[in-house]
Amino acid sequence: MAWMKILTERDLKSLVSLDADAVACVENAFHALATKAVVMPPILRLDIPEYRGEVDVKAAYVPGIEGFAIKISPGFFDNPKIGLPSTSGMMVLLSSRTGQVQALLLDNGYLTDLRTAAAGAVAAKHLSRPDSAIAAIFGAGIQARLQLKALMLVRPIREARIWARDDAKAKALAGELTAELGIPVTAFADPKAAIAGADIIVTTTPSATPILKADWLAPGQHITAMGSDAEHKNELEPALIANAGLYIADSLNQTRRLGELHHAITVGLVGSATEFAELGQLVAGQKPGRSDAGQVTVADLTGTGIQDTAIASLAHDRARAAGAGAVFES
Amino acid sequence: MAWMKILTERDLKSLVSLDADAVACVENAFHALATKAVVMPPILRLDIPEYRGEVDVKAAYVPGIEGFAIKISPGFFDNPKIGLPSTSGMMVLLSSRTGQVQALLLDNGYLTDLRTAAAGAVAAKHLSRPDSAIAAIFGAGIQARLQLKALMLVRPIREARIWARDDAKAKALAGELTAELGIPVTAFADPKAAIAGADIIVTTTPSATPILKADWLAPGQHITAMGSDAEHKNELEPALIANAGLYIADSLNQTRRLGELHHAITVGLVGSATEFAELGQLVAGQKPGRSDAGQVTVADLTGTGIQDTAIASLAHDRARAAGAGAVFES
Repeated sequence: MAWMKILTERDLKSLVSLDADAVACVENAFHALATKAVVMPPILRLDIPEYRGEVDVKAAYVPGIEGFAIKISPGFFDNPKIGLPSTSGMMVLLSSRTGQVQALLLDNGYLTDLRTAAAGAVAAKHLSRPDSAIAAIFGAGIQARLQLKALMLVRPIREARIWARDDAKAKALAGELTAELGIPVTAFADPKAAIAGADIIVTTTPSATPILKADWLAPGQHITAMGSDAEHKNELEPALIANAGLYIADSLNQTRRLGELHHAITVGLVGSATEFAELGQLVAGQKPGRSDAGQVTVADLTGTGIQDTAIASLAHDRARAAGAGAVFES
Repeated sequence: MAWMKILTERDLKSLVSLDADAVACVENAFHALATKAVVMPPILRLDIPEYRGEVDVKAAYVPGIEGFAIKISPGFFDNPKIGLPSTSGMMVLLSSRTGQVQALLLDNGYLTDLRTAAAGAVAAKHLSRPDSAIAAIFGAGIQARLQLKALMLVRPIREARIWARDDAKAKALAGELTAELGIPVTAFADPKAAIAGADIIVTTTPSATPILKADWLAPGQHITAMGSDAEHKNELEPALIANAGLYIADSLNQTRRLGELHHAITVGLVGSATEFAELGQLVAGQKPGRSDAGQVTVADLTGTGIQDTAIASLAHDRARAAGAGAVFES
């Protein structure tokens, strides 16, 4: 018999939020990815086409972190028809020394939302111009909201634009964020107009066809694409990757298979073995970031197991300190 | 917020045991593997060499079964030094229609033990001679015990022999099983002597070098090897695979990479693309089993996700019927 902690979504929301600590936690994980003997196996993916369902399982061991997370992320895209969210899921935190389950984090995807947004902040911190003030966000879902908040933790954002395929959703989100963040947030019907003059562009959609074109870009812009976590998803026109002054992957292994890079490789604009820097190498100072204020930079984020291990460990540490959660005998 | 059931090892032990129902449940899963559009992705494996630890994550979707299991199986081989078992783990049962977590099965490996032993029974039922009466078991761990019990569910076993590298453990287990099963169970110091006259031989060890030699075998014997679930493990001399009258895999995809077959391929005795039947095809009547009483048959079992989905679903169904387990809001 063993003992484990069970933390619900409610517990987790009271313990961790999108703040400087969460960004630092995820930044440290990327640092470890570049500098330590991290073990991050390929994602286990199971598809259930008859219910438009998919499940990703990610895991990563980071030396020096006491536990490692195994994350189960289902996406079932007919769920909204029966009143359920498309995504759900949980993380299991195991001891790195004994393999025993330490905690079940029943987060319904909350921790994934946090660590995904935090990675956007880390990318912007290392790639965007320090004076970046205008953000353009593509998409109107939870990540559109969180990515903007994440940018505001690392850059002096004073204006934001939202473009989404569904203009009504873009307008609704813009209204909410204006009230919540204290900066003007405006919905744009035209994506090209939305990015004109923006310093940072973040794409957060599940689009399978490019929504950001290479020839719309202006010198000095930084683009973070975080919507592609599967082979068929594609937000950036492949020429944009090929023409970028600097392209950075969260994990090159993954972006070659799943990310925006994958599509640039498929159409032959980038060689399949072309080397690019990874975000962790920038964090660790092993590779240079932005060279000058005119460079166009691109961060291709597919989501990595190290982020899960980092945020799950932060949540577990805080739960211990606060005495939060239920203890369960297995 | 969603609701899920939590079942502890104690709950699960009261709900399911190694009996005819468990064997039928696993047999049905193999039938489905041969006849339905089962989705069984490659195993996710994470190694933590500095703590002699490994974790396997398996998952499988079987059409027609309401839920699918994701199983987390850690093995940390220094644990006994600090008084903990080497293996632990749990299963998460998700709805096949919505992806939502239905149940957490905190079984510490109990359900894996059951479904592994049940697969041994299924293999013996379809491959060993119906009059098989003498069983030889290699190993003295939990699977040595359970595989013998599983054989007794499908064949008229009236005598058993145990050989293990540690003779004292073999003797202790033989004594226990004699008392428990009501048949004579004898420890043998010599593995060759142990299998002389045996009808069924089951190897259950984590050996990395062959413990069963090809030229020890006699006509009509059936061998089930279930100890190899990783590249380096190897219980059967490769010539034994090459010379067998009939070789059957639980999953050919897996045995080519992880099983006994893998080693026969590596040394060049079997071609890497050679086709063999799978256990599910025998169950479904798609491929023939044993041809005659003199044939030597071999079942190579590496453990499959369908077995986990089947046993987890059986446990969950019984828990619902019995009102067992704790209900938890996530």
